[in-house]
Amino acid sequence: MSEALKPAEILASGKFERQENEFTTPFGDQPGELPVEAGRYRLLWSAACPWATRSAIVRELLGLEDAISIGKASPLRPQKDTADWAFTLDPDGVDPVLGIHELSEAYLKADPDYTGRPTVPAVVDLTTGKVVNNDYFKLTNYFEVEWKEYQRDDAPDLYPEDLREDIDTLNEIIFHDVNNGVYKAGFAQSQAAYEAAYNALFARLDWLEERLSKQRYLFGDQLTDSDVRLYTTLARFDVAYYDKFRCNKKRLRDYPNLWNYAKDLYSIPAFKNNTDFHAIKLHYHVSGHLSGSDTEFRVLPKGPDLSVWLEANDRQRFLA
Amino acid sequence: MSEALKPAEILASGKFERQENEFTTPFGDQPGELPVEAGRYRLLWSAACPWATRSAIVRELLGLEDAISIGKASPLRPQKDTADWAFTLDPDGVDPVLGIHELSEAYLKADPDYTGRPTVPAVVDLTTGKVVNNDYFKLTNYFEVEWKEYQRDDAPDLYPEDLREDIDTLNEIIFHDVNNGVYKAGFAQSQAAYEAAYNALFARLDWLEERLSKQRYLFGDQLTDSDVRLYTTLARFDVAYYDKFRCNKKRLRDYPNLWNYAKDLYSIPAFKNNTDFHAIKLHYHVSGHLSGSDTEFRVLPKGPDLSVWLEANDRQRFLA
Repeated sequence: MSEALKPAEILASGKFERQENEFTTPFGDQPGELPVEAGRYRLLWSAACPWATRSAIVRELLGLEDAISIGKASPLRPQKDTADWAFTLDPDGVDPVLGIHELSEAYLKADPDYTGRPTVPAVVDLTTGKVVNNDYFKLTNYFEVEWKEYQRDDAPDLYPEDLREDIDTLNEIIFHDVNNGVYKAGFAQSQAAYEAAYNALFARLDWLEERLSKQRYLFGDQLTDSDVRLYTTLARFDVAYYDKFRCNKKRLRDYPNLWNYAKDLYSIPAFKNNTDFHAIKLHYHVSGHLSGSDTEFRVLPKGPDLSVWLEANDRQRFLA
Repeated sequence: MSEALKPAEILASGKFERQENEFTTPFGDQPGELPVEAGRYRLLWSAACPWATRSAIVRELLGLEDAISIGKASPLRPQKDTADWAFTLDPDGVDPVLGIHELSEAYLKADPDYTGRPTVPAVVDLTTGKVVNNDYFKLTNYFEVEWKEYQRDDAPDLYPEDLREDIDTLNEIIFHDVNNGVYKAGFAQSQAAYEAAYNALFARLDWLEERLSKQRYLFGDQLTDSDVRLYTTLARFDVAYYDKFRCNKKRLRDYPNLWNYAKDLYSIPAFKNNTDFHAIKLHYHVSGHLSGSDTEFRVLPKGPDLSVWLEANDRQRFLA
């Protein structure tokens, strides 16, 4: 098992169980909540990470760029098989706003006893330099609901009130079977745990393929938070999960509806600007967990062909 | 680097250079050649190995089953990351004719100082128990030419005299760019060596795709030795080389002509009987070189879908 995973995340059965987030204080105007203030926070993400990419996409879809600044960590870990993230993309390897080299510094500032993996997305309060929220599951919902006053005027409503219950339900399903499903397959330390995750993943993709055969987005004509969550896994499928995580029943491009849906989303600037296939490949194949022993030379796969992402999609058929 | 590769097989540049064969005495009736005698030899192979599978297919295509007996080693190495082959598929883990547990025993009987990898195919002389030929490049040609008197009456001429020069030339090309090309990509220990092999491989597959767009087999309507050599690599492409060896520009099934050609060959019993996709997957993903550290749990990928091999092919279009 890679050093980058905490031993506690692999159960005796060989099953991968993702660590809980420690910093889950919500944004809001109630006592004890994180105050919503433009210019106060910095969102730390990496283009490699599907969980962080959700918040980067939603931030841009909603026009929150001026309200919440953003810092990008390298897809390459500071050392092979460690779990930290480093700001080596910035001059001198330092985040220009926070002045830190590695993400763990902001975690340890918030909790000197922090022993979990330092994960992205992480929202840092600029008044303290501390991580205040790393709740990847709810962060996009905070941007969508609590940060409304800072959104651009024509921002889409990604989390409309009348659909929230259904979106939450679908997000849970997508989380367990797809978003985290690929990790459960890729990090499994027993054949049974792997096959259970593989079966659930591909059954769910079949179900989603069917759902998307009848409508443009997961909730009809309206782009929602659920689409962002599904997309970040789909964008990594053929370049990382298919081979590295052994999710190799089919590729994304073998599902006509899911594939055209993914290309449709990719044609939206907020999605495309936050989709860096090279970073994804570097992370999963060269720097990520399960890439081999830490002394082994790691080759970056040259394929698959990515030009297909720019080809036309057929989703216009759902336009009235 | 895996222990299973000899250090001498990786050059300073990170390039993989396959070891030379030691036992290359030809079959024939000249002094010093191996006498052609029915019942005298045993061909040792493994369904995992593309080099050995060539000789198993040709033996059956030509009807040499009664003349040359066959022993099959397990696709799983006796220990992870060792280069030996073991007869664990046989009762008590012993080849019933030779009485050996591992292939190295027959190599060491022939040469007590043998330090190379013990490879299949290996032809063992039953009168001595020694390996007498492991020349995977020429072995099928010996079966085709020197063993003619033992072939079945309607055996195909896989190496017709008027085509031998062209077949030899094409076999060299297929060897360097395709058969061994996937290994050069998969075993490369530098990004440059990997990319050179990847580029040569896919350029050659494009060239073969074009050649097979105009004729049923590599030499027109006639099945030849070259088809067997190309086939054994194609049969391993989507289940092993695409992911494990990072040959992931395209899958075999993405090339219309190569894919239909491969299915056409697979429909011939001598090919199908000697194509064991499960053994191939076990070998490359669980037991083979580059599968990870020797203490690491290895998952057997469940995909890709193999039922497609039984689907119809379109090669009838070349029938007159």
